[in-house]
Amino acid sequence: MLVVQKYGGTSVGTVERIGEVAKRCIATQAQGHQVVVIASAMAGETNRLLGLAKQIDDAPPPEMERELDVIAATGEQVSVGLLSLAIHKAGGRAQSFLGSQVRIITDSAFTRARIKSIDAASIHDALKAGKIAVVAGFQGTDEDGNITTLGRGGSDTSGVAIAAALKADVCEIYSDVDGVYTTDPNLCPNARKIERVSYEEMLELSSLGAKVLQIRSVEFAMKYGVKIHVRSSFNQNPGTWVVPEEAQMEDVLVAGVTAARDEAKVTLLGVPDQPGIAAQIFRPLSEANIVVDMIIQNVSDAGRTDMTFTVPRGDLRRAVELVRRSLPEMAEAGIKTDDHIAKVSVVGVGMRSHAGVALRMFELLAKEAINIQMISTSEIKISVVVDAKYAELAVRALHDGFGLGS
Amino acid sequence: MLVVQKYGGTSVGTVERIGEVAKRCIATQAQGHQVVVIASAMAGETNRLLGLAKQIDDAPPPEMERELDVIAATGEQVSVGLLSLAIHKAGGRAQSFLGSQVRIITDSAFTRARIKSIDAASIHDALKAGKIAVVAGFQGTDEDGNITTLGRGGSDTSGVAIAAALKADVCEIYSDVDGVYTTDPNLCPNARKIERVSYEEMLELSSLGAKVLQIRSVEFAMKYGVKIHVRSSFNQNPGTWVVPEEAQMEDVLVAGVTAARDEAKVTLLGVPDQPGIAAQIFRPLSEANIVVDMIIQNVSDAGRTDMTFTVPRGDLRRAVELVRRSLPEMAEAGIKTDDHIAKVSVVGVGMRSHAGVALRMFELLAKEAINIQMISTSEIKISVVVDAKYAELAVRALHDGFGLGS
Repeated sequence: MLVVQKYGGTSVGTVERIGEVAKRCIATQAQGHQVVVIASAMAGETNRLLGLAKQIDDAPPPEMERELDVIAATGEQVSVGLLSLAIHKAGGRAQSFLGSQVRIITDSAFTRARIKSIDAASIHDALKAGKIAVVAGFQGTDEDGNITTLGRGGSDTSGVAIAAALKADVCEIYSDVDGVYTTDPNLCPNARKIERVSYEEMLELSSLGAKVLQIRSVEFAMKYGVKIHVRSSFNQNPGTWVVPEEAQMEDVLVAGVTAARDEAKVTLLGVPDQPGIAAQIFRPLSEANIVVDMIIQNVSDAGRTDMTFTVPRGDLRRAVELVRRSLPEMAEAGIKTDDHIAKVSVVGVGMRSHAGVALRMFELLAKEAINIQMISTSEIKISVVVDAKYAELAVRALHDGFGLGS
Repeated sequence: MLVVQKYGGTSVGTVERIGEVAKRCIATQAQGHQVVVIASAMAGETNRLLGLAKQIDDAPPPEMERELDVIAATGEQVSVGLLSLAIHKAGGRAQSFLGSQVRIITDSAFTRARIKSIDAASIHDALKAGKIAVVAGFQGTDEDGNITTLGRGGSDTSGVAIAAALKADVCEIYSDVDGVYTTDPNLCPNARKIERVSYEEMLELSSLGAKVLQIRSVEFAMKYGVKIHVRSSFNQNPGTWVVPEEAQMEDVLVAGVTAARDEAKVTLLGVPDQPGIAAQIFRPLSEANIVVDMIIQNVSDAGRTDMTFTVPRGDLRRAVELVRRSLPEMAEAGIKTDDHIAKVSVVGVGMRSHAGVALRMFELLAKEAINIQMISTSEIKISVVVDAKYAELAVRALHDGFGLGS
């Protein structure tokens, strides 16, 4: 097999940890596999580097983002050098590769570049020579040879992209978390590690998965059919497989329950119910890069309607300002905000083929006397907005009610 | 003018210092010059990086030196990114370049590579666009795209090599020292900053110059006729110019006095005086990369001769072992060592055309009752080995005796 292993910052956070990772790489190779390793920067290093930049200019203009990438990319460069040394010290053979050396070509969107192509030839050469190829995550190079980075958590995407380019059998993503759980174990002590989850579910479980897997990497894996195995580098336990949807996945109605507490709600009372009004409200928000998550519009009454939407909590003030500007005739009293909300979701591909999941969810919440403020559904997810103080209670009620506990 | 400015580790040791360097670069450009800046790693950074590597493997084998370079090269990469940001923040325009991006092609001797060629096109493009080009020192890339480094102090060589490739009018070398002095000011408070010194003198003054200028960079400058101006980045004072020999330089008999305390002496008593014996002794030392500095052989007596040579103090034990092995018939008592010696030298191109410098030197030392153990001369240098405890006294006597004080 060709195995791609991606190790996160805590997994390579100290020279001791790097030594452990080296042993794991060698053990994998000793099982007869070809091994390609993607390394993140040592934990805290990217923040240290960007902190230096911030001391010089705390808000560098876009034309200076090129230089931020020059600085930030060094974190992974150090890691691959150290890990190669450690593999050699532990008796293996290794060669490091930078983004530019494996021609991970990206666009020129510095600090958030997207991968366009990878030339896997040099990696294949190293593998054929019996070496473990150690590739710097997070970084690439544009067509002009400028260093680029893929944005926070970009090493996951590097790993999946390289796995896709090499047609690897699996992309193992190592961190200090040993998989994706049915819900946050801090909320539900009986939360269970999910064995297998589909790409679509993983995307919807983002708030659970964000700590272990960058969402862009899941999109990438889905597009190229890369099988991901989310595991802990601190033990040998099997983790969670993120794979194409399988028939038996539909037997499980709900795969997981998530809670997001980072949104705020804006309600507009008595909006004129006329064509084009929604576009008038949301265009400025979109232009300001404010991500609107849920939108609800009730049926109108006497030519007026109420509209509610959620935005990231940090964008709330700016969002309200923009709405005021686009609806100047709107009375001040007509704009209400609430940042004490939580979005609780149940996710599962099983609900595509089974009715009644939403009803069961509402019943479970009602039994706990939790009022539902907003509802939004997709094919494989149902989300409700509730008062933030009920978030934990709602998660526990749903997790147990859908029988997810171990 | 096209000005190349190279800043050492202390000159870019903090973000504040980097800000000061940025202002100096911009001020130089504002005088109507084109400016190329070579930056070292922030003071202490290269040691920190190699310290991490050492924690993993305290004696990496030669085949792992490639990875040491991958790690060490990040120090300069961070510096050029930060300095570019700082130049922009201070109102200038800048672009960073890595060794690979200006195609500083070296051989593949990792950790001590030598520059073969530089493609100055991209730097010229940046200069034409009105930018300050900020180039990472110390690093290059071999023909296969592997990262290489030039060895300790290699940023000086980077600066001079880039100045040569660009046909720059001057290569300014900035550090925390404001020039080359007639001797160590810690020994002689009246030591004087030398205004102009020839390449040849600078090479011989290495023990004075090593702190401010890597010797290899002087050889490079001599070869390509690059004018070097050694200056402090902490003030605006003119420093020392290192230039081709000029006629008036011969008016000065002695340019400087140096003392080196890092050598040890090996004396072999009663060596068989036969053809090939010297080669037999020194071949193993050469093969072990032990640099033998001075060698003295007295006239022979009854088929036996005495031989004395000096080696770096750290290599003394190994040197003695090697000599024992190559002269197994040599009695143990016949090998004497002394690591309490100092080599004191006077340097100056003027002695080429003036006799009597050696005599004057011996007289000055005799007046202080300092016994001379060994003597070695070159065209522009006379060195003597004395007991280490007389080193300071000898330097002061020679410095004052040759009228070098201010």
